[in-house]
Amino acid sequence: MPEQHSLEAAIAWVDATAGFLDREDILLPTARGRVLTEPVHAPGPIPGNDRAALDGFAVQASASLGASSYNPIRLPSIGVAAGDALPPGTDAVVPLQLAEPDGQACIEVVEAVAAGDNVEQQGAIATIGATLVPARKRLAARHIGLLTLAGLSRVSVVRHPRVRILITKPTKAGAWEDSNGLMIRVAVERDGGVIGECVAVERDRTTIRAALVETEADIVLVIGGTGPGGDDHSAAALADAGELAIHGVALRPGETAGLGRTVNGVPVILLPGAPASCLWAYELFAGRVIRRLGRRAAELPYRSRQMITARKIVSSLGMTEICPLRCGSGDTVEPLPSFAETGLMAAVSADGFVIVPQGSEGYPQGARVTVYLYEER
Amino acid sequence: MPEQHSLEAAIAWVDATAGFLDREDILLPTARGRVLTEPVHAPGPIPGNDRAALDGFAVQASASLGASSYNPIRLPSIGVAAGDALPPGTDAVVPLQLAEPDGQACIEVVEAVAAGDNVEQQGAIATIGATLVPARKRLAARHIGLLTLAGLSRVSVVRHPRVRILITKPTKAGAWEDSNGLMIRVAVERDGGVIGECVAVERDRTTIRAALVETEADIVLVIGGTGPGGDDHSAAALADAGELAIHGVALRPGETAGLGRTVNGVPVILLPGAPASCLWAYELFAGRVIRRLGRRAAELPYRSRQMITARKIVSSLGMTEICPLRCGSGDTVEPLPSFAETGLMAAVSADGFVIVPQGSEGYPQGARVTVYLYEER
Repeated sequence: MPEQHSLEAAIAWVDATAGFLDREDILLPTARGRVLTEPVHAPGPIPGNDRAALDGFAVQASASLGASSYNPIRLPSIGVAAGDALPPGTDAVVPLQLAEPDGQACIEVVEAVAAGDNVEQQGAIATIGATLVPARKRLAARHIGLLTLAGLSRVSVVRHPRVRILITKPTKAGAWEDSNGLMIRVAVERDGGVIGECVAVERDRTTIRAALVETEADIVLVIGGTGPGGDDHSAAALADAGELAIHGVALRPGETAGLGRTVNGVPVILLPGAPASCLWAYELFAGRVIRRLGRRAAELPYRSRQMITARKIVSSLGMTEICPLRCGSGDTVEPLPSFAETGLMAAVSADGFVIVPQGSEGYPQGARVTVYLYEER
Repeated sequence: MPEQHSLEAAIAWVDATAGFLDREDILLPTARGRVLTEPVHAPGPIPGNDRAALDGFAVQASASLGASSYNPIRLPSIGVAAGDALPPGTDAVVPLQLAEPDGQACIEVVEAVAAGDNVEQQGAIATIGATLVPARKRLAARHIGLLTLAGLSRVSVVRHPRVRILITKPTKAGAWEDSNGLMIRVAVERDGGVIGECVAVERDRTTIRAALVETEADIVLVIGGTGPGGDDHSAAALADAGELAIHGVALRPGETAGLGRTVNGVPVILLPGAPASCLWAYELFAGRVIRRLGRRAAELPYRSRQMITARKIVSSLGMTEICPLRCGSGDTVEPLPSFAETGLMAAVSADGFVIVPQGSEGYPQGARVTVYLYEER
């Protein structure tokens, strides 16, 4: 195995390497989950005019002066519904229950209103030019509702990172079947990337190098061929195609992961072929590049919470270890068989995981640890 | 206004009304985010055969007995990569660094191995018939990876709730423009629903009734016309089309929301036309129906956390009130102008919200409250 880098060094490389992608203009109906590149300002006041805040009758407030149930005042009946523009000559709304239609074209008002009562003033929600949504926001229904209300139909968002996946096919593969490609595609999708291409290539230094050099994607993921064996050429091919910055991380699972870039500066992440290692090298490195490119939060997309170990957690000194956990009663967690023992099954059985740093041998029973939860309970 | 029901009563109606949808079989590549209807069992052992756990040389362990650096033992060179099936006649793997190729077809082994060393046994991850993923799981990359590894290509999942949206068009609308439809479509999408149809209909009792009765969707959302005004016919139309179970909820925003079902039992949610009310009636009632139909978690899809009020929060007694909040330093939150004052702008400006129950007038400064956060900081 090559020299091992710390997890922190590998993550620092990712953060120094993955810049932000440029923008694209899209229609509002397709904007959910996209990240704004710049603040959106109100093109006009919201609302655009003074309008009724509730169902009732529009009046000139001064004409209602002195009205009470003992002294109802007769006014013209101008019915308005909540949201209607205030008709000319009126400046307040009398609620339905404080006015009695007289069957003619008039109402009897039993309580005086002041100018502006039950009226939503022009610009009350936003004045012209006000910031409606700040830059970097990921758009959700509430933002899209407000932008629609402001009369906007397009927004400028960070474009989707284009991801190329190269699955290296073992040389002596007989009945070889890839089981990583789909898993990684699905994870890319979750992180906002789009798959430009996902192809199997011969596990051969020249072939992999050629596939890397011709890349036009924003990031390339190479699956398999990252180890120390005779059939492992991914790292050498990346070195040939540009730069192999890091190969070998003190991380379990994920030890043989590699990071670098092509001569054209496209980040390349080498993912080990063992499924659990492939997944974790994706989560910590490849996914982080994709999330950063798309200006999402770079961190692992799982909620974290302080919890208490119900049993001790053992980890190897010198390796950052991902330990699968199951939630117990209250705020407790207990370790499950490791990824080394049960591979992806550990990820599927677990409620979450703890990342035990390189310098730690684990945690005693009763320790407070930061647990990443796959799903909130 | 009609009689007001408590928020709890409205939610109880939703939970009693919205059953689970039936299943559909889909291909694994489209399964991200879908909910399994039943557990998936391993069709065979995983791995399917004994295989090398790391790169090295496959040997018969008994032949390595007594090997040391002082007494290297010569064995046939059978190179294997991690994941390769163990060749016949071998039962252990000597790691690369403990064997020296002699340039011929042999290696010199410098440490004895026991049968099973560095071998992943057939069935070590899962035995035949073992549960790989339990029912009700929402499928993520790790599940899809494991199911691919198990050789599966299809899964049985809860089908997407089909949602019909009727936007009622005010009778005297001149330059009427709907600003709610898109916001609600986007929210439906987030909750796993698919929009079967989203149409504007005249705000007329007979028209709305007819549109409700002919429905083949799993849920219908009617936007607008829910208030007490002369142009508000949605509630009466729903009563005509089946059952108006609840109209008027002690909820702000969202007071004029309605809940019921058609003669065919299809749930119908009436969403007020004021944008903030529309959004909140969606979040609490319509979204909950959709999430339940699709067997997702019924609760609001926001993370909640205990936080401390930096200023007092005022709410009306007798109304459950949604109060927008901004996060301050540490674990503190402070109130923002209400939804009544700034509508959707409050939802967009806020970091989260607190739901102040009907029986409470709010919280003093320094109180510990459950805050729903739009995004984790």
